This record gives sequence, structure tokens and C-alpha cells, in this order.
Amino acid sequence: VGNALWQKQPKANAELFALTYGAMVGELIRDLEKTDKIQDELDRMGHSMGIRCVEEFLAKAGVDNVNSSNNASFADTADLMKMALKMFLGVSAIDYTSSPSDGTVNIAAAATAGNTTTPNSSNQYSIFLPENPLAIFVELPEDRLDLEYSQLLCGLIRGMLEMLQFDVSCQMVQSQLKGDDINEIRVSLQQVLQQGAGEEYQEE
Amino acid sequence: VGNALWQKQPKANAELFALTYGAMVGELIRDLEKTDKIQDELDRMGHSMGIRCVEEFLAKAGVDNVNSSNNASFADTADLMKMALKMFLGVSAIDYTSSPSDGTVNIAAAATAGNTTTPNSSNQYSIFLPENPLAIFVELPEDRLDLEYSQLLCGLIRGMLEMLQFDVSCQMVQSQLKGDDINEIRVSLQQVLQQGAGEEYQEE
Repeated sequence: VGNALWQKQPKANAELFALTYGAMVGELIRDLEKTDKIQDELDRMGHSMGIRCVEEFLAKAGVDNVNSSNNASFADTADLMKMALKMFLGVSAIDYTSSPSDGTVNIAAAATAGNTTTPNSSNQYSIFLPENPLAIFVELPEDRLDLEYSQLLCGLIRGMLEMLQFDVSCQMVQSQLKGDDINEIRVSLQQVLQQGAGEEYQEE
Repeated sequence: VGNALWQKQPKANAELFALTYGAMVGELIRDLEKTDKIQDELDRMGHSMGIRCVEEFLAKAGVDNVNSSNNASFADTADLMKMALKMFLGVSAIDYTSSPSDGTVNIAAAATAGNTTTPNSSNQYSIFLPENPLAIFVELPEDRLDLEYSQLLCGLIRGMLEMLQFDVSCQMVQSQLKGDDINEIRVSLQQVLQQGAGEEYQEE
């Protein structure tokens, strides 16, 4: 489904997008200077995009509207968010486990969903992205190695889930930009929002 | 050729791109406040993207490298820039004239190149874009009607032409965001740069 959605989306040039995103991060660095402020701002931008995009995404994905999704359990949103990232970035999330015994890596295509090897619990899941289109031209400078360059993606997921009544925290816990083998976005449930609570945010 | 190039490009989601560009302009508004400064910054960003992208574009378009293109006359760069915009934005430039007698509009597909109706002279040409992917979600607020929201595109063209040894000025002279029927980017030659002059800018 994610792939079909991606195919149907109007497209932009990926390089121009990556360069534009980079120019925006550069602008935030000049303006805000402090890494945590820059990251907060990227998160805020992604959050408002997520709020804005989620309804259209659900409609295109053939998922019932936000209100009736209320009963979905949090764990079920993992596949929905993977589908959304495919639609927005064109990148398929994969299942990923690194074996602690011999350090080798086991990557199984996400197509085998349902047989997921993703570390999972009822209130936390990870999304593994084998590539990051935002970061194709990027190398973090020495003095910005602590910057979560792609924090916009975390904000995007946080915004979408908020509209589905899930208040989450969302972080990149592994990043290829920082030398990790994979990009891992961890989504942790904070609380289930009361019905209607999300609606205020539609005004943003 | 432009269409084939566009097909082959890695793609991003057009909506996410437009929203990201919008977030960047919003950030510049907050940071710089003054419209002319915001526009200068968008132009500067586009300029450095143009400098960065032009060689790859020429290679993909099958055009000889920058140095040997030196002898190309300025007017010949019009088709090259239209092709570049197609590759970067996925939008085909069109020939466009509005008849002053009855106010009707004559749009001929750009495919009939060579039979161009674009107002043209040896040191100035216009590129007409029937749609603007950067601006799909945008409505300028009352107090920003003077903002050239898509100035990045002008900077992009300016940067590419600079690498081809043409120092140009580049402006949106018509914009659908401001209520015009079409988007018109006017490119005016300021001077032909000495060979090698462009190379300094590669360091940027």
C-alpha cells in the first residue's frame, strides 16, 4: 500500500528538496545557534506538517477517519507511520536487528510485515530507515555532531500521531549521519489523548 | 530531453517539499523581518544551489562541460534553463503571449521550440511557468504581498548561468501568487564573465 501511495504522489526533485532542507537547517543554525533550539524548531515544523498532512494521508491510505481510528491500539500505528514515511519520503522502512553475539546485521524486507523483528512493546516501537533522503548531501561539521539534522521527521510523526489521539515522544536514536549503520526513529507513547483533544491543534 | 531528465531524477514528495520550503520562508520572515532581506536570502540560497547543481545538470542533459559552453550565446541559454527547471521542478515552461487587443491569452506548448513566441532580445528572455510547485499551499498575507516568495528559483538560474560565464539579473515579473495569470521569470544579461571568473564561486 505504501508503495502504491508513493507512486501516486505528485513528485519533486529529491536533490532540490534535500538542498532546500539543508538551506533551512543552515538558516536555523545562523538564527538560533544553539543545537537544542535548532532541533526544537525542526521538530515544531515537522509537527505542524504532520498535523496538516495526516488526514489526507489517511484518506489516501484508505484508513477510516481520525475519529474512528481512536480505538486502534498504539502498536498498530507502527505500520501506519511506516506507510506514511514511504508516502512522504519514498523510503521503505525495514525490519532490523543487529545480533549482539557476532555483530552481524540481519535485515529483512519490510514486505514481510506481520513477522516483524522490530523491538516492540505495547508502548514503544522503532522505525528503521535504510536511507535518509533529507541527508543525502550532508556531513555534520565537527561542532554540530550533536545536532539531530532530521528532527523534522520526528516532529512529523509526532504531529500525525497526535491527531490520532496519541501523545508520543519521538527521537532519532540511531542515525547514519552520526556513523550508525541505520536510521532508527523511536516512538514512545506518553498518553492517550481524550477524544477531541487533538482537534484544537487543527487550528494551528 | 527535459522530460526524460525529469523522469530519471530521484524524487521526493512534492507536498512535503512545498511545505518545507514554506517553513523555510516562514523562518526567514521571523528571522529577517524585512521583505528585501528575506528575498535576498532566498536568492542567495538558490544561487548556491545553482552553482552546485549546474555541472550535474549539464552532464545529465548531455551538454558539454562548462568551459566549452563558453561560446554559447546568451540567447541559447533560454532553452537550457527551461530544461533545468523541468528537471528540478517537473514543470514545463511554455511559450506565452497575452494579446493586448482582446485580452485573450495564447498558450503554445513549449514542445514547439524554435518557433518561440517568447518576447526575446539578444540580452533578455523570459521563462513562463504555468504552475509553481513551491507555492502550492501558499497565500501571501496582506502585509507580505510584496514578497517574491519563489525568489529561490531566480537565484537558482542566476547561479547556473554564472557558472556558464553569464552574469545575469533574474526576477519574477509576473507571479500567480500575486494574481497574475502566469509565472514569468525574466533573465537579463549584465555581462559576459571572463573565462575562469566563475571558478572562484565553486569554492562557495
